[in-house]
Amino acid sequence: MPGPCRQIDLNCDFGESYGTYTFGQDEALLAFVTSVNIACGFHAGDPHTIREAAERAVAAGAAIGAHPGLPDRLGFGRREMALAPQDVYDYTLYQIGALEGFVRAAGGRLHHVKPHGALYHMAGRSPELADAFVRAVRAFDPELMLYAQWGSALLAEADRQGLRRAAEIFADRTYRTDGSLTPRSEPNAVHLRAEDALAQTITIITEGHIEIGGARIPMQGDTVCLHGDGPHAAAFAARLHEGLLSANIELRPPHRP
Amino acid sequence: MPGPCRQIDLNCDFGESYGTYTFGQDEALLAFVTSVNIACGFHAGDPHTIREAAERAVAAGAAIGAHPGLPDRLGFGRREMALAPQDVYDYTLYQIGALEGFVRAAGGRLHHVKPHGALYHMAGRSPELADAFVRAVRAFDPELMLYAQWGSALLAEADRQGLRRAAEIFADRTYRTDGSLTPRSEPNAVHLRAEDALAQTITIITEGHIEIGGARIPMQGDTVCLHGDGPHAAAFAARLHEGLLSANIELRPPHRP
Amino acid sequence: MPGPCRQIDLNCDFGESYGTYTFGQDEALLAFVTSVNIACGFHAGDPHTIREAAERAVAAGAAIGAHPGLPDRLGFGRREMALAPQDVYDYTLYQIGALEGFVRAAGGRLHHVKPHGALYHMAGRSPELADAFVRAVRAFDPELMLYAQWGSALLAEADRQGLRRAAEIFADRTYRTDGSLTPRSEPNAVHLRAEDALAQTITIITEGHIEIGGARIPMQGDTVCLHGDGPHAAAFAARLHEGLLSANIELRPPHRP
Amino acid sequence: MPGPCRQIDLNCDFGESYGTYTFGQDEALLAFVTSVNIACGFHAGDPHTIREAAERAVAAGAAIGAHPGLPDRLGFGRREMALAPQDVYDYTLYQIGALEGFVRAAGGRLHHVKPHGALYHMAGRSPELADAFVRAVRAFDPELMLYAQWGSALLAEADRQGLRRAAEIFADRTYRTDGSLTPRSEPNAVHLRAEDALAQTITIITEGHIEIGGARIPMQGDTVCLHGDGPHAAAFAARLHEGLLSANIELRPPHRP
Repeated sequence: MPGPCRQIDLNCDFGESYGTYTFGQDEALLAFVTSVNIACGFHAGDPHTIREAAERAVAAGAAIGAHPGLPDRLGFGRREMALAPQDVYDYTLYQIGALEGFVRAAGGRLHHVKPHGALYHMAGRSPELADAFVRAVRAFDPELMLYAQWGSALLAEADRQGLRRAAEIFADRTYRTDGSLTPRSEPNAVHLRAEDALAQTITIITEGHIEIGGARIPMQGDTVCLHGDGPHAAAFAARLHEGLLSANIELRPPHRP
Repeated sequence: MPGPCRQIDLNCDFGESYGTYTFGQDEALLAFVTSVNIACGFHAGDPHTIREAAERAVAAGAAIGAHPGLPDRLGFGRREMALAPQDVYDYTLYQIGALEGFVRAAGGRLHHVKPHGALYHMAGRSPELADAFVRAVRAFDPELMLYAQWGSALLAEADRQGLRRAAEIFADRTYRTDGSLTPRSEPNAVHLRAEDALAQTITIITEGHIEIGGARIPMQGDTVCLHGDGPHAAAFAARLHEGLLSANIELRPPHRP
Repeated sequence: MPGPCRQIDLNCDFGESYGTYTFGQDEALLAFVTSVNIACGFHAGDPHTIREAAERAVAAGAAIGAHPGLPDRLGFGRREMALAPQDVYDYTLYQIGALEGFVRAAGGRLHHVKPHGALYHMAGRSPELADAFVRAVRAFDPELMLYAQWGSALLAEADRQGLRRAAEIFADRTYRTDGSLTPRSEPNAVHLRAEDALAQTITIITEGHIEIGGARIPMQGDTVCLHGDGPHAAAFAARLHEGLLSANIELRPPHRP
Repeated sequence: MPGPCRQIDLNCDFGESYGTYTFGQDEALLAFVTSVNIACGFHAGDPHTIREAAERAVAAGAAIGAHPGLPDRLGFGRREMALAPQDVYDYTLYQIGALEGFVRAAGGRLHHVKPHGALYHMAGRSPELADAFVRAVRAFDPELMLYAQWGSALLAEADRQGLRRAAEIFADRTYRTDGSLTPRSEPNAVHLRAEDALAQTITIITEGHIEIGGARIPMQGDTVCLHGDGPHAAAFAARLHEGLLSANIELRPPHRP
């Protein structure tokens, strides 16, 4: 019998279009996720896109997060840059604020912040950059929640600085025995079958570990990252959504105080 | 004998550097103004510059305003663009928010919003763009104040929508009999002597009009725009500051409720 | 029996993707056009996109043109900006050159230049901007050809400055009796049926006029603009391509000396 | 008695202003250098700035080089980015071309290419990036010359691909015994006295080595990099210029075939 802790959040990146360019499948995904991460205009997004994304997310009842990225629209924020901690602080604080007005105007309230792409990985492994990122979130609003990868420096920094945080796990990615993601350059980096992704996710939620080659690696997740691009994104999200409900797992965002 | 209404605000644009490029004389001007308008990253400014500008302004006790501009860094926001009202709304709301976090982090509070350059003029004469601009300010925070030109559509819209506003006058520019500024393309557009600028400003504040060729044109100002660029900007600001105090005019920002 | 002048060029905009964002249907259109206009990185396009576009165009044997636009990626170069003639000259010269290396590397040679969007219209009606645009093309290479709208200031300037030019007509747009395009804001601005577009095009080519409400408006075209976006772009291009060939009209680019 | 090989080129970065922002001391430096590297709009520069820079350089008779940088204007191209070789190729080819038209229009001819900032260092140590950079230069014009640091992967690649190249040395920087520059993070990274910089430069040119702690490190230079920013840039350039002439060293650009 499932207890009250059998719950999970499904999040996806959101509002990543730019000007006349469209990207992702925001509408389709919104039916299956419980929280969204809205691009803030650096790696993707623009004021018009952000406004529409905020309005859609509020209308759907999704928890809204800021999704700050690197100032590299040409690379979609996926290329690492040699940033100083002060850069990370400044860019993050700017982007959270840039979203704030649109969430207010839509009648909502910012719920969380999740770094995007290369910034997610850089701040996830560097304590200095993680410190800067967490300080920026707290400077904007200490009640905001941080979404970051299970085991990352970002979660450790959030704990150290007293910021509420959600550990993120990936449904469609495989893990290595040290708890890190299998690099995309390797052949088995991605679960090609939705069933495998679903099984992995349910095991993490209900058992608190992941199985790799017979070994049990401890892992806990508060939120699952769903990718919004790719031709099968919506079907994958639908299957995960349905499968988790069938496993008696409640879908809802980690709530704020 | 000066009454309680003999007061004025001196404002200047602020934080207009970008990356490795510096612009303006922020530190020098800060000694003489009572409020600043911080560029928000579209026509000028960047996260690092904004943070430093907010910290300096808070430290100096200046009232802090957002200074949103057109998305045209190459043209410094001075070239008109054919924007729809929705563009103006979105760009303004984005930029006010982008500044918000830095003001919070510096321990301050946003006080006003003043559009920059071509946006100032476009929204100053178009009721549709003025409506969009004022709605964006109100959507972010209905207690913010609008700074806009005496006689502009922006002030009319602020009154219509119930937004507090300050009428801006220009110390170093000459006016035409319809109350508009003499275009810069004309030879006498600018007061070359600080004394003339000071006299014009004092007359507006104490008499409520301006004299042009013997005629008295009604004009009232709550805030005076000081330009921060040009070789004589600081000396001009110092003279105006000193001259207004000598005329028994109190210098302080229009206060919020 | 068709004479040697019964020929036409079909051109389409090309290489308008940006970073991770894709736009248009370059591959599909390439089968039907005889020349392409490659975006140069201001309103659309980026170095990677440009390289691929140049390689594809050379491989397909299409005549390659530069397609400079306004520095407004957010607005896709469709919003007019208050530019000085010097701006138009500088932006155009920069963009033609930016494409040049990729065309060389692909083994091709630049054939023409066609301004994009708002720049097309601004320079099409302003003799000053048209003069600046034509001078920039000539400064880069006086053997380049200009593509511009039938009846525009750009064609007049090209004639005045001795630059070879091709008059552009629109297949899917309707015209007014003064030879200008019906504005898109009006209901009948676009030919919804491909047959109507084809008939209009054939009439211009073979008769040298267009019929509007019974009146014959003189019009000549050297190249037909095909739009690359919209769901029916490829089908429309295919129909026009096939219909023109069936009418015994040769499809080929206006050739250089 | 000086032989024919006692000659050197003095180069400086050029045209690094942007829009309303000015940077560097182009005019002052131009009196002392024999070649310039013009920023191409990625890390610095814009079409207007580039045009003026090209005109000035042609008027002064300086050899003109393209100075491509990373697409990071906010960081002035000084922050390393995780670029693929294809990115380096594409960005370089784009930027060389972007300058080409302005040099033509000014009546000059492109002479060399020198990467800027982080790109200079990244391609200077990575054979893959160096290969991409050199291929881009050759694709544009195989008669162009490459300027790159003595001992760098870029020079090795130029030799391998048959591209003419000039080894660059730094007058105001100190070296380590492996021939690399002392990092700026170390206290003695920069020659504070112009005389030391001059002596080091003359020793390299006339002796073919540098002395570090009594040891002689082989080093040859075809061109000396002069920095254009900093308060003493012009005075330093003047002293170096005069001192080299006094040492009977001819100042002139490495000539093309």
